[in-house]
Amino acid sequence: MAKRVVNFNPGPAALPLEVLKIVQEELLDYQGSGMSILESSHRAKEFEAVNDQAMALVHEILGLGADYQVLFMGGGASTQFALAPMNFIPAGGTAAYVDTGEFAFKAMKEAQIVAKAHIAFSSKAEKYARVPKMSEIKYPEDVAYLHICSNNTIEGTQFHEFPETGKIPLVADMSSDIASRQLNFNKFAMIYAGAQKNLGPAGVTLVVIRNDFLAKAKTGLPSMFTYKTYVDNKSLYNTPPVFAVYIMKLVLEWIKKQGGLAAVEKVNVAKKDLLYGAIDAAPDYYKGTVEKASRSWSNVTMRLPTEALEDKFIADAKKEGLIGMKGHRSVGGIRFSIYNAVSLDDIKKTVDFMERFHKAN
Amino acid sequence: MAKRVVNFNPGPAALPLEVLKIVQEELLDYQGSGMSILESSHRAKEFEAVNDQAMALVHEILGLGADYQVLFMGGGASTQFALAPMNFIPAGGTAAYVDTGEFAFKAMKEAQIVAKAHIAFSSKAEKYARVPKMSEIKYPEDVAYLHICSNNTIEGTQFHEFPETGKIPLVADMSSDIASRQLNFNKFAMIYAGAQKNLGPAGVTLVVIRNDFLAKAKTGLPSMFTYKTYVDNKSLYNTPPVFAVYIMKLVLEWIKKQGGLAAVEKVNVAKKDLLYGAIDAAPDYYKGTVEKASRSWSNVTMRLPTEALEDKFIADAKKEGLIGMKGHRSVGGIRFSIYNAVSLDDIKKTVDFMERFHKAN
Repeated sequence: MAKRVVNFNPGPAALPLEVLKIVQEELLDYQGSGMSILESSHRAKEFEAVNDQAMALVHEILGLGADYQVLFMGGGASTQFALAPMNFIPAGGTAAYVDTGEFAFKAMKEAQIVAKAHIAFSSKAEKYARVPKMSEIKYPEDVAYLHICSNNTIEGTQFHEFPETGKIPLVADMSSDIASRQLNFNKFAMIYAGAQKNLGPAGVTLVVIRNDFLAKAKTGLPSMFTYKTYVDNKSLYNTPPVFAVYIMKLVLEWIKKQGGLAAVEKVNVAKKDLLYGAIDAAPDYYKGTVEKASRSWSNVTMRLPTEALEDKFIADAKKEGLIGMKGHRSVGGIRFSIYNAVSLDDIKKTVDFMERFHKAN
Repeated sequence: MAKRVVNFNPGPAALPLEVLKIVQEELLDYQGSGMSILESSHRAKEFEAVNDQAMALVHEILGLGADYQVLFMGGGASTQFALAPMNFIPAGGTAAYVDTGEFAFKAMKEAQIVAKAHIAFSSKAEKYARVPKMSEIKYPEDVAYLHICSNNTIEGTQFHEFPETGKIPLVADMSSDIASRQLNFNKFAMIYAGAQKNLGPAGVTLVVIRNDFLAKAKTGLPSMFTYKTYVDNKSLYNTPPVFAVYIMKLVLEWIKKQGGLAAVEKVNVAKKDLLYGAIDAAPDYYKGTVEKASRSWSNVTMRLPTEALEDKFIADAKKEGLIGMKGHRSVGGIRFSIYNAVSLDDIKKTVDFMERFHKAN
């Protein structure tokens, strides 16, 4: 077996080794059932228990009030880009979008296909190098909701405070920072997140909706595009992505065992401090790409003096078992995606490599 | 480890043990990459190879012409119930639906949400005990397509011939019999199938579309609801359900290794002959629920003289390691779902049990 790499993939991404070992161990025989969980009916008591437990863990770990529904859906966050406006922008209405990166922009574009979208802020002209100050976010008083992307995976920026929207529902794509830090999740009318960064494998999307927002949803949409279908059927209206939900449950248990988001955040802060520290220690060599106040704790981006050096950095790192650091094809450079399953030790190894690479090159 | 059960689950369903063993073996280290396939980026060469191979295997095993596109999508076949009419029924247009069971009916209902649907045939009044004779299927000449469900999982009926629709595109939900028998798949303008019966685990839906039909698709839909998005990006527009596609590839390789659909069909015919033979040998005790000419080779349904006997049948069978035979909650009775991964030996054991149960009860 090859030595386990340090995996900086941006998503699908590293999973906790502890979780993978459980998956492997019970792959042929799920808890004495004589079959794999991959073969379990979604109506079987074994899977219903997994589904219920995963939903309860989401409530518990995010600290959600009883007025929140937890949904497990297919199609990735990109499907939510369409479903949120389809469900929540009334005929003739508008929603406001904060444009802070490629995915935030895509969400807005999809909203414009099915309804109207107001640009509440955009840092596109600044190459998405920052998220807004809260005072910069502007929108009409009658918008159906305000949409933000809490962490911009490609660009490496993140919201560290959130707008006070009063009566306007706040909707967030948290695909790349859900469950990575402590937050008042009850501020949000709706949160969605593809699982494949901090929660599990690709193939399931977590959606959280507050009841008062859900009550405003439109009717008359196809069943699978109606949030209420999932709520009314505990996300078992049709066959769900069983295996992805099962692994998400294991990852949530792993988070809980560590001490929940307080403990997870502590490690993540240490990780990002170490990594940004290494960048800032050699600012003419390792150049951060975003404003310091907007730096992401999930995706740390930087450039080297030349593209040739960046290629060498990636190639040399790979020889030491550090992989997945090539920046998104739309922006280039280096990106360390340091989601929950990347350990502080992994970052220590990386920083050590960075120092040696700098000296040698 | 518990003894492996004979798994008659209707879907998610039995997977080939050979495939599960490969999955288990490489779960912590995919082909020397130092990570699990669950952690692989969908843009990594490892997964792109899996994706390409799975698509090529679909082409090869189904014998599809070069004018067919293979798509891997999320959301299950239930999402296709909405997407097919959204993409292919033009404004003001109609599609024709053959109503032969609960899922065929649901497909029609979803079409009626987004457009108009013409009922080309219905056996609802006959409790869905049969599929139509080809001459019974009637529709206007200008419908956008004719939709059938090739196998009715809940009711236990199956099409054994297919309508000649001339210029009208034929669309089929083949979720519960795809890749289980030899067919001229090139008759169909579009085929879709949730993977979780014959192709893999829940979480990915196979869609096959002929180019001339695809060319008729409407524009202006959200990206994730547009088939062309998947075609243009080899189903990698957004993060796909990586693990489900990986297992589907392994299942397709398993089918190929056995000799493709000719070999698979031979086993499946032997299985259904044995099981229906056991039913017909005791027709006053084991009562088939559908017309013989419409009997499904995938889902074999029967009733016993009383519900109490049915409950005992299920309980006694479970003691012998035969599970998943409870009929769908909407119809009751007994259902053996005998998809590809259920072996002829499994059926022999079952028939033996049926004979003993009959004598004893």
